[in-house]
Amino acid sequence: MNTPSSLEELIESLRCLPGVGPKSAQRMAYHLLQRDQRGATRLAAALSRAVELIRHCQKCNSFTEHDVCALCRSVKRDASMLCVVETPADLLMMEQAQCYHGLYFVLMGRLSPLDGIGPKDIHLDRLLQRATDGIVTETILATNFTVEGEATSHYIAELLRTRGIRTTRIARGLPVGGELEHVDSGTLAQAVIERHAV
Amino acid sequence: MNTPSSLEELIESLRCLPGVGPKSAQRMAYHLLQRDQRGATRLAAALSRAVELIRHCQKCNSFTEHDVCALCRSVKRDASMLCVVETPADLLMMEQAQCYHGLYFVLMGRLSPLDGIGPKDIHLDRLLQRATDGIVTETILATNFTVEGEATSHYIAELLRTRGIRTTRIARGLPVGGELEHVDSGTLAQAVIERHAV
Repeated sequence: MNTPSSLEELIESLRCLPGVGPKSAQRMAYHLLQRDQRGATRLAAALSRAVELIRHCQKCNSFTEHDVCALCRSVKRDASMLCVVETPADLLMMEQAQCYHGLYFVLMGRLSPLDGIGPKDIHLDRLLQRATDGIVTETILATNFTVEGEATSHYIAELLRTRGIRTTRIARGLPVGGELEHVDSGTLAQAVIERHAV
Repeated sequence: MNTPSSLEELIESLRCLPGVGPKSAQRMAYHLLQRDQRGATRLAAALSRAVELIRHCQKCNSFTEHDVCALCRSVKRDASMLCVVETPADLLMMEQAQCYHGLYFVLMGRLSPLDGIGPKDIHLDRLLQRATDGIVTETILATNFTVEGEATSHYIAELLRTRGIRTTRIARGLPVGGELEHVDSGTLAQAVIERHAV
C-alpha cells in the first residue's frame, strides 16, 4: 500500500531493459527519484527522441536517422568490400579496430532455430541483394564464433557460394599478445588448423 | 561517424542508471531500439510521470504522490511506534516481513562523512520532531549493520537518548534456518553477545 502507482509503473517499465530484474528495477527507480531527477527527465526525452528518429539504414541495415547512414554514403569507403556482422555493436568494434575500410551489412541477429529466428529475420534476402550488386567483389563474414554465429556464417557462405560470390571468414586464433600456456585448447587447436605460410 | 546523435544521447542518458557503464548502456539502447520500442516509449512516459508526481511524504519522508503517504494516513497503524530505515526499499522489506505495524521514518540515506553526508542530509531534525510528537513512545532503529548504518544508528540513539525517548535497535544474529557451521564468525560472535534469557 506504500508504493505510489507512478512509482510502481516506473519500476515495471524499467524491466524492459536487458538484464534488469525486479530488484535492480526498484533500485534504479529509487536512485533516479532520490538522486537524479534531471537524469530521469533527460533519459525520458532521449528515449522518446530515439524511438522517433532511429530507423534502419536501407543499405547496411544498421541504425541511422536517415534513409542511408553516413558510413554507407561516405565516398571514402571501399564499396567493393562487404563485411557481415551480427549487431551494430559489432560494427562499432570493427570500426574501432581501424582495420577495415569497406561497407557493412548488419544482420541484427543470428540464425537461431530454437528461438524461431530464421533467414528472413536476419534479412538474408537484402544481404544477397547487396552482395550481388555488381560492385561488391568480396563478402567478409564477421559473425561471432559462437555456435549460432558459426551456423549463420556457414548458411550465408553456402548461399553466396552458389551465386559465385567470393566469400571469406575472419580468422580464429590466439589473441594478440596471447600465450599458448593461457589459451583454451579449442582456440589453440583452431590456431594450428588455420595456420598459414610465412 | 556511424552512431546517430539521438542514439548517442540515449546511450549517454542511460548511464544515469546505477550500475550501468558505457557497455551496458550501449547494449540497452540497441536492445530497446531493435526489440522493444514499445517498452522504450512506456519507460519514457513512466519516467516523466514519476518525476512529475512523486515527492516525499511530510511525515515519513518516503516516496508518495500525496502530501502524506497512505501508510502514514492509515488508522490501522500503531502511531506509538516509529521505525527508522535508510531507504524506501528497506521500508518495503519491513512491510514484506509483516512483523511491524507501527509508522516509519525514512532517512533517504545514512551518515557518511567521507561522502559529505551529514545529519542534515538525512533529515535528523525532522526525525527528532516525529519522535518527540508526544504520541511515539518507542523508536526502533532499523538501519543496516554496515559501518555507516551502525554509525547512523549510534548517532540517532545518542540524539534521542538525551531527549529521554525510548530507543531500540533491531537484533543481530544468525539468520532463520542458519547453521553455526556456515555463518561468519563476526555474526556468530554478535549472536553470542546479544544472547537473551529463554
